Amino acid sequence: MGELTHFDEQGRARMVDVSEKSATARVAVARGSILMEPETLRRIKEGRIKKGDVLAVADVAAVMAAKRTPDIIPMCHPIQLTGVEVGFEDGHEPDGRAYLNVSVTVRCVGQTGVEMEALTAVSAALLTVYDMCKAIDKGMTISGVELIEKKGGRSGHWKRKRG
Amino acid sequence: MGELTHFDEQGRARMVDVSEKSATARVAVARGSILMEPETLRRIKEGRIKKGDVLAVADVAAVMAAKRTPDIIPMCHPIQLTGVEVGFEDGHEPDGRAYLNVSVTVRCVGQTGVEMEALTAVSAALLTVYDMCKAIDKGMTISGVELIEKKGGRSGHWKRKRG
Amino acid sequence: MGELTHFDEQGRARMVDVSEKSATARVAVARGSILMEPETLRRIKEGRIKKGDVLAVADVAAVMAAKRTPDIIPMCHPIQLTGVEVGFEDGHEPDGRAYLNVSVTVRCVGQTGVEMEALTAVSAALLTVYDMCKAIDKGMTISGVELIEKKGGRSGHWKRKRG
Amino acid sequence: MGELTHFDEQGRARMVDVSEKSATARVAVARGSILMEPETLRRIKEGRIKKGDVLAVADVAAVMAAKRTPDIIPMCHPIQLTGVEVGFEDGHEPDGRAYLNVSVTVRCVGQTGVEMEALTAVSAALLTVYDMCKAIDKGMTISGVELIEKKGGRSGHWKRKRG
Amino acid sequence: MGELTHFDEQGRARMVDVSEKSATARVAVARGSILMEPETLRRIKEGRIKKGDVLAVADVAAVMAAKRTPDIIPMCHPIQLTGVEVGFEDGHEPDGRAYLNVSVTVRCVGQTGVEMEALTAVSAALLTVYDMCKAIDKGMTISGVELIEKKGGRSGHWKRKRG
Amino acid sequence: MGELTHFDEQGRARMVDVSEKSATARVAVARGSILMEPETLRRIKEGRIKKGDVLAVADVAAVMAAKRTPDIIPMCHPIQLTGVEVGFEDGHEPDGRAYLNVSVTVRCVGQTGVEMEALTAVSAALLTVYDMCKAIDKGMTISGVELIEKKGGRSGHWKRKRG
Repeated sequence: MGELTHFDEQGRARMVDVSEKSATARVAVARGSILMEPETLRRIKEGRIKKGDVLAVADVAAVMAAKRTPDIIPMCHPIQLTGVEVGFEDGHEPDGRAYLNVSVTVRCVGQTGVEMEALTAVSAALLTVYDMCKAIDKGMTISGVELIEKKGGRSGHWKRKRG
Repeated sequence: MGELTHFDEQGRARMVDVSEKSATARVAVARGSILMEPETLRRIKEGRIKKGDVLAVADVAAVMAAKRTPDIIPMCHPIQLTGVEVGFEDGHEPDGRAYLNVSVTVRCVGQTGVEMEALTAVSAALLTVYDMCKAIDKGMTISGVELIEKKGGRSGHWKRKRG
Repeated sequence: MGELTHFDEQGRARMVDVSEKSATARVAVARGSILMEPETLRRIKEGRIKKGDVLAVADVAAVMAAKRTPDIIPMCHPIQLTGVEVGFEDGHEPDGRAYLNVSVTVRCVGQTGVEMEALTAVSAALLTVYDMCKAIDKGMTISGVELIEKKGGRSGHWKRKRG
Repeated sequence: MGELTHFDEQGRARMVDVSEKSATARVAVARGSILMEPETLRRIKEGRIKKGDVLAVADVAAVMAAKRTPDIIPMCHPIQLTGVEVGFEDGHEPDGRAYLNVSVTVRCVGQTGVEMEALTAVSAALLTVYDMCKAIDKGMTISGVELIEKKGGRSGHWKRKRG
Repeated sequence: MGELTHFDEQGRARMVDVSEKSATARVAVARGSILMEPETLRRIKEGRIKKGDVLAVADVAAVMAAKRTPDIIPMCHPIQLTGVEVGFEDGHEPDGRAYLNVSVTVRCVGQTGVEMEALTAVSAALLTVYDMCKAIDKGMTISGVELIEKKGGRSGHWKRKRG
Repeated sequence: MGELTHFDEQGRARMVDVSEKSATARVAVARGSILMEPETLRRIKEGRIKKGDVLAVADVAAVMAAKRTPDIIPMCHPIQLTGVEVGFEDGHEPDGRAYLNVSVTVRCVGQTGVEMEALTAVSAALLTVYDMCKAIDKGMTISGVELIEKKGGRSGHWKRKRG
């Protein structure tokens, strides 16, 4: 399309062209934590948070955010997700702080991977936990949001070391 | 992905994995009604509603809501719709109340069906009718929103009895 | 704005001007039902639906849909909601069918009412129930979606008769 | 689906059925301009607009709007874009006014073309330029928003004459 | 908030702070045109466009886009609109081409103006006309999208010269 | 509204009622980091990331996500933001890893605080950095996303200790 060559495209952000990539089954798993007061975790588990069942809402937030990722991450390709699963785990750090871990697995059959969908879903779940508990614990910290594993596509299988 | 097996996924809502399902042509037809005062129906048909042409706006609302279904229904898979058609019909119940029926046909070529898209579109159209006429008739009732027929996919052809 | 008077605005749908209305506290309550097989209700209550905890997801769907109402209902004014509450109730019809009722209360302090937000939230909750159970019961019917009560604004208190 | 034939579908807007069309690689290029005071262009280029780097924000607005086109254009089919690129060019008209041109190239592999995505992206970029500069130049005019070229699909290659 | 002063905020795009501005009644009127083949205009007016009633759909697109402006224009403030009206006008240019003009009036009571909402609504309406007619006329051009008049706020009344 | 008292609202998630709270000026500041390979940071700073100018896109992502927070965080109230500012800072950890810090300040005049908007904006910016650099560094970790300070509203001034 020669008539456009005089346009200055140097340095412009773009959604990189993946038209030539083949559609394959892809999976990505991401994980993240939120650190909180032990009393906050206790209330979450006992269902004593005024805004409602924290994990149930965080779970839905994760699934919906996975679907809306291309709306939130500007250069991310739109993808038709074929599956999203969310898991929770909790415990206590050696320093006495409590934590809640969120893990999200996202699947698709498409031309690009779903790493961003998994990471965005984890972030939305953790932010939702913050939102529902912030009346009693504003000091919570979101931490360790990272990709754990991905499969499919040209770059193949990737797995975090010492995940 | 063994490293995740210690996560508690019991009971969590999920977008169920359809990665293995094949993409086939699918159609779903849904229908619903809104009951109103006969005078309200008369004004709709005569174009005397202050907010504008009720059926034209309800029609657009239906098409747009069909596209946004995965944003509204949390565990619903995103699907690229290939067609949406809307139809209206009106009449009077034996008890004297008037009704407006909406029917929506949605099509796609994909891994899951479009029943939710058709039902969501019908609901959006009926809610839009309510919105545009509520200044004169707050007592309207939305009723009988249901799937009429679906075709395609593993579960094949389904048709409502005495639809 | 005289220069526009030659534009044909006859019959065009519009978002009616509420600039002159005063911001007051407003409440709307809407309700609706979904009819299903008794076995479907049993499974919902026992948490044996594969997609997850049906009422928890329907609850979140209702709150999120209330917030997105102006995106779904074309001529509806945007409003900053100040509260949304969702309730469920179930039982059996004389004819043996089971039902699940959803009720939503929406509040705002604004220039227009929140009837549409309450009705849209009820519809989203009922559609979500359909989505989560449709694998076992495609014949479910959404019924009786209607406004129960509203307070605030120029038209004051309105309450459905024999609600 | 004979049971629907009594519905009046005459004249209703529809998302036309493309289920039968084959998925092919498609490209569309659109272009548009915004005319402004020469001083406004100077400030854009020198980075002296209070709201920030105008072209960087317009670029992101274009890519995000391309993805959201089916939400903005009612009867437009949802499509999974595979690439979006944005270019800018500036200069002066013979009458002394300055202009900024925006060009957007959109790609997909799908059943319908991406002309609307390219045109919507161009419009969003130009509106963003207006937004970021309107404090100093309310008289700017958006002009010449048009399709330059499209490839792929049943209608094949189309190119604007004297583009 | 001294702890943040070491952050580099030079040149970053921002949503400029309007917290101190007072909420006043504001109005903005924008206008734009789409140029087309005379035959295209004839078909629009006779309702012979396959996708449906062009002006009815463009009208709804305008109102919905006005509401979604802060989602489309990155640095634009969210505003609760209190009214949106759309008008159409058509005719022929001296050179024989036909045109369709769209005019949109947007109102709010708020801390910033609604110029962007009016301009975005005009653009959405014109893009919708393009979408609905592009099967028969790909060469249409959107032109002359500009602010006509605004009232309210610190900058007061502004009116385009020779509008 | 006595007719609803028989509805089971125990434990349901809700958007808590803030109708009685007064609208006051509010500010929230949140911060977070992304850890990466030193080479990745070098490329970001030299503008050698294929997807474009990383900080410019992350900045826009933050502002847009702040506005969409109530769409992403289920029980979060909608708020009309009056200002959003984003800052970046980079450096190296003692262990040799590089970091990029993002800080976001959000303002509103409203009935609830903007902590969630600030935290969501920070998360969106960090996820965008991940997206734009993931082709060269999949091991990046998002860390330390937390509220730094908030002012306004009933709970008054809150500031993180040793922030």
